[in-house]
Amino acid sequence: MTKAQLTENIRKKKSYLCVGLDTDIERLPDGIAKNPAGMLEFNRRIIEATHSYAVAYKINTAFYEHLGAEGWDVMQRTLEYIPSNIFTIADAKRGDIGNTSHHYAAAFFQTLPFDAITVNPYMGEDSIKPFYLEGKWVIILGLTSNPGADDFQMQRLTNEDKYVFEKVIEVSRHWGNEDNTMYVVGATRGEYITRVRKIIPQHFLLIPGVGTQGGNLKEVITRARNQTEGILINVSRDIIYKNASSCFDRVAREQAEKYCYAMADFFGES
Amino acid sequence: MTKAQLTENIRKKKSYLCVGLDTDIERLPDGIAKNPAGMLEFNRRIIEATHSYAVAYKINTAFYEHLGAEGWDVMQRTLEYIPSNIFTIADAKRGDIGNTSHHYAAAFFQTLPFDAITVNPYMGEDSIKPFYLEGKWVIILGLTSNPGADDFQMQRLTNEDKYVFEKVIEVSRHWGNEDNTMYVVGATRGEYITRVRKIIPQHFLLIPGVGTQGGNLKEVITRARNQTEGILINVSRDIIYKNASSCFDRVAREQAEKYCYAMADFFGES
Repeated sequence: MTKAQLTENIRKKKSYLCVGLDTDIERLPDGIAKNPAGMLEFNRRIIEATHSYAVAYKINTAFYEHLGAEGWDVMQRTLEYIPSNIFTIADAKRGDIGNTSHHYAAAFFQTLPFDAITVNPYMGEDSIKPFYLEGKWVIILGLTSNPGADDFQMQRLTNEDKYVFEKVIEVSRHWGNEDNTMYVVGATRGEYITRVRKIIPQHFLLIPGVGTQGGNLKEVITRARNQTEGILINVSRDIIYKNASSCFDRVAREQAEKYCYAMADFFGES
Repeated sequence: MTKAQLTENIRKKKSYLCVGLDTDIERLPDGIAKNPAGMLEFNRRIIEATHSYAVAYKINTAFYEHLGAEGWDVMQRTLEYIPSNIFTIADAKRGDIGNTSHHYAAAFFQTLPFDAITVNPYMGEDSIKPFYLEGKWVIILGLTSNPGADDFQMQRLTNEDKYVFEKVIEVSRHWGNEDNTMYVVGATRGEYITRVRKIIPQHFLLIPGVGTQGGNLKEVITRARNQTEGILINVSRDIIYKNASSCFDRVAREQAEKYCYAMADFFGES
């Protein structure tokens, strides 16, 4: 999917919503079997309930790898349920020496047909370059939403008056371009979104941390949106696990609608 | 496997050798089918040929994920071929917010029975803690062997006169202890191994970069070994792909033996 198509989808739906399919086999609701088939059924119903409001789905690979080979099948079949005009992200946070990253890219862009993958930049340029395949997107961890971001990302660098995460964004923006690269920036760190936007005004940001993690939706949108909209806001648990009864999908729909309505305020009349 | 057992195995075999099963389906030798069954057959023969010399096997998960669900089956069945007294490492370089890392830990320590997993520390403490399961090892990326290590790991931090990778090791050594934590330190950066040893004299190091990447074996051992031996030296391509004929396993055995002999010089008479 091109940047122009993504922007168009966002404007059409008046939504930045990315629904995170962090599907935990132990947390499947009443009436859904706690096995791979149940996980797939859960995803199917969540997608059916939310796809009118979502412009992206993010599959968190950990929850599927937990099941081994069967989990990979669930991931593959889940992708088949997602309408083709909705952006798909493998939240895999991969990155390794070039020869190895080439195989991760093949796993998520060829074996599986994701539009985008999240990657961890700690190993530097040659660990990320292999993910830049034609028509695909690379989403680089910038500043994450978890407490551990303070450990290293928020350390300051000598002679540059900047944080490690700023250096990471500054350097890595040249690995690809604004048409094939996004950055993860956590909603829990609102004031830093503005710093990020100074370095990369044109890139898309994938923003987790709204919802269960407590980030403020309006603050995030105000600080982060740009002329091409430029944001995807991920919500996982607050949509997919809001209700554990057999009506889970109706409640997921209401939650997605709620987020979408809150976002629609930021779009002009059309 | 405990640290004492690992040290004992190393001394018994007079070997620090970890054989990297970076099994690339496109590079399988003559006579081995380029499919998942061929990949498993290749691994079986490599393990049979090298297990007398190896104290560890490292499975690079990217090469298996490339095949999707079938690749996970190959990974699982490969582990069954590895003798139980040999240490097994999932070279997966995972790490995510705690709730997610918990599922990665389950994938590699419960669904698959690895002894250890490599993890990426960029997201900090809460992203790594969930990997500390009873009896398992966490192997944290310290200073990697690839060129991209210069991009961020080798940046210097304000007011601390140290590199980012040194800060990472200094902070993260308190997440576990020397009986359940190792560090990846690339052999291509010999002079820094000494710096690493000043921070963590007692931990085990997993050292890639000898062999195809050019690191010097003797320099690495001299700088890195400690009273409990304290090192695993990984060689992948220079053993498993040294020969592409149907005799690949005989040549792999010779290569493993060659490395093992070079290492044996460092052990006293016994």
